[in-house]
Amino acid sequence: MKLASLKAGGRDGTLIVVSRDLQRAVLAPAIAVTLQAALDDWDVVSAGLQDLAASLEAGPVEGEFPFDPAAVASPLPRAYHWVDGSAYVNHVELVRKARGAEMPESFWHEPLVYQGGSDDFLGPLDDIPVPSEEFGIDMEAETAVITDDVAMGTSPEDAGKHVKLLMILNDVSLRNLIPGELAKGFGFYQSKPSTAFSPVAVTPDELGDAYGDGTVRLPLITHLNGEIFGQPDCGTDMTFNFNQLIAHVTKTRRLGAGAIVGSGTISNYDRSKGSSCIAEKRMLETIEDGKPSMPFMSFGDTVRIEMLDKDGNSIFGAIDQKVVKA
Amino acid sequence: MKLASLKAGGRDGTLIVVSRDLQRAVLAPAIAVTLQAALDDWDVVSAGLQDLAASLEAGPVEGEFPFDPAAVASPLPRAYHWVDGSAYVNHVELVRKARGAEMPESFWHEPLVYQGGSDDFLGPLDDIPVPSEEFGIDMEAETAVITDDVAMGTSPEDAGKHVKLLMILNDVSLRNLIPGELAKGFGFYQSKPSTAFSPVAVTPDELGDAYGDGTVRLPLITHLNGEIFGQPDCGTDMTFNFNQLIAHVTKTRRLGAGAIVGSGTISNYDRSKGSSCIAEKRMLETIEDGKPSMPFMSFGDTVRIEMLDKDGNSIFGAIDQKVVKA
Repeated sequence: MKLASLKAGGRDGTLIVVSRDLQRAVLAPAIAVTLQAALDDWDVVSAGLQDLAASLEAGPVEGEFPFDPAAVASPLPRAYHWVDGSAYVNHVELVRKARGAEMPESFWHEPLVYQGGSDDFLGPLDDIPVPSEEFGIDMEAETAVITDDVAMGTSPEDAGKHVKLLMILNDVSLRNLIPGELAKGFGFYQSKPSTAFSPVAVTPDELGDAYGDGTVRLPLITHLNGEIFGQPDCGTDMTFNFNQLIAHVTKTRRLGAGAIVGSGTISNYDRSKGSSCIAEKRMLETIEDGKPSMPFMSFGDTVRIEMLDKDGNSIFGAIDQKVVKA
Repeated sequence: MKLASLKAGGRDGTLIVVSRDLQRAVLAPAIAVTLQAALDDWDVVSAGLQDLAASLEAGPVEGEFPFDPAAVASPLPRAYHWVDGSAYVNHVELVRKARGAEMPESFWHEPLVYQGGSDDFLGPLDDIPVPSEEFGIDMEAETAVITDDVAMGTSPEDAGKHVKLLMILNDVSLRNLIPGELAKGFGFYQSKPSTAFSPVAVTPDELGDAYGDGTVRLPLITHLNGEIFGQPDCGTDMTFNFNQLIAHVTKTRRLGAGAIVGSGTISNYDRSKGSSCIAEKRMLETIEDGKPSMPFMSFGDTVRIEMLDKDGNSIFGAIDQKVVKA
């Protein structure tokens, strides 16, 4: 099934069930009012949502209305936990190579993650407000999973069953603020403003064979100002799958229901696939030409991120955002 | 007024108003069911809560019951945003000095903050579950504020009015996991397990003259295994006050209502005041003796953190926790 949250009814939005073709939707007030409420009680609630989704797929249902991606927030408009990995280690290797540094061997064996801010996600079609172009505005096209409660010390083998929903996302990054923040040693904060997620979150079965072993096996397509920028395959060169990321992040803590775990920027060794962020493109330019030539984003620039199934149908709907002055 | 959350009614607990002496409490179902709900609509809801608190202070109210700190979760059992500063820069200076490194001059001018995990806070009397003593288990005694909505680009001058509630906290830290995580460059994650907050959160007026200019001006008292460990004054040597921290964290993002902003470990240059974490004690030993002698916490060890007003009364109630094997 596919779920979304209308920008209505409160800070957590209003849960709707969306048809597979993203054309029709229906409220589910008798089952759960918000997606967070559904996740808080998923074992009880999800069957009812699945039934409603099946009815919607089968034909007209009472109260259905056209699905409008402009009317929705991120599936979780705010969340209690957002941790983003950097699971495509070849991307990290590139970052280091571009600045002439070796990447520690351990990066191939232990996931790199950062804790993100989760109180104020952007909707999939919302503008990206940034105070200054000087901050080095960039997108990062990624995939993510939403979990139920996950106990401390969960193994990769046991982690898979905790993946309840999948999304795609734009992990907006302010590149020129990153070196200063990372030099201070405490990780990202100002350099990672609000993140935007896809119009809908989907259960893993919606991807069929294209999801398994904690890995999405389809290209994630990024357009910059209407032109194709990258379409790397999410199932290729993913060093740590979602099950491994979940095991890593539960080493010393529980995850509460509704926790979001991200993959990090999708990146393939096959450079003909393009990139999922401008920073990677600039690194490739630096390695080839000694310096980057492509600029970061300007006010007015747009980014579109989407994933299509094998028949060319959008799975999550498109993230389609414009950068604006805050 | 003083507010707390019973461990009952759901994942966000059940809001109660607590008497100033922490002896009596009353539910507020007609006003707000949870503290997060109250914060989501603070301008409308807080007056009703203030009225109820005034009634409770004036005498018996219908439905009141004895306040039991063991029955409460953290005031926000889970939150959408938890960002912790390191506002007592002399503590950071000590960390560097102990490992023979210079601290960048910029640390005196720009706050250091990290994004914390906020989906699973511990209650004030809850055990601290840790998988292994080898992780280097430590407490950090701190103060924190809870904000309402704060716009991007808020100045320190405008930040003060967004401070709605104050708490004290134990920022549990796993010292032996920190060097590896910080070396990877993405900040803390596994090294910062679930945080515990005080039994009650209080409005700034509850501190009277002891709160102003974004600064608490009272000692924060830490006991380790029943013995006094430190009582540094929160108003001394705080390089960045809460108003400055809020301005820093809203440079590139909004804060949503219920965001928690922490001070970092309280630390005074006057070493006779003791420390708020074992790591600082070990740094002082290293600087004096060439090596640390005090061990980190073992399973069974207890930590108690409390703040008393000028008459010796507990303001927030005590955090009193035991470390146990997860």
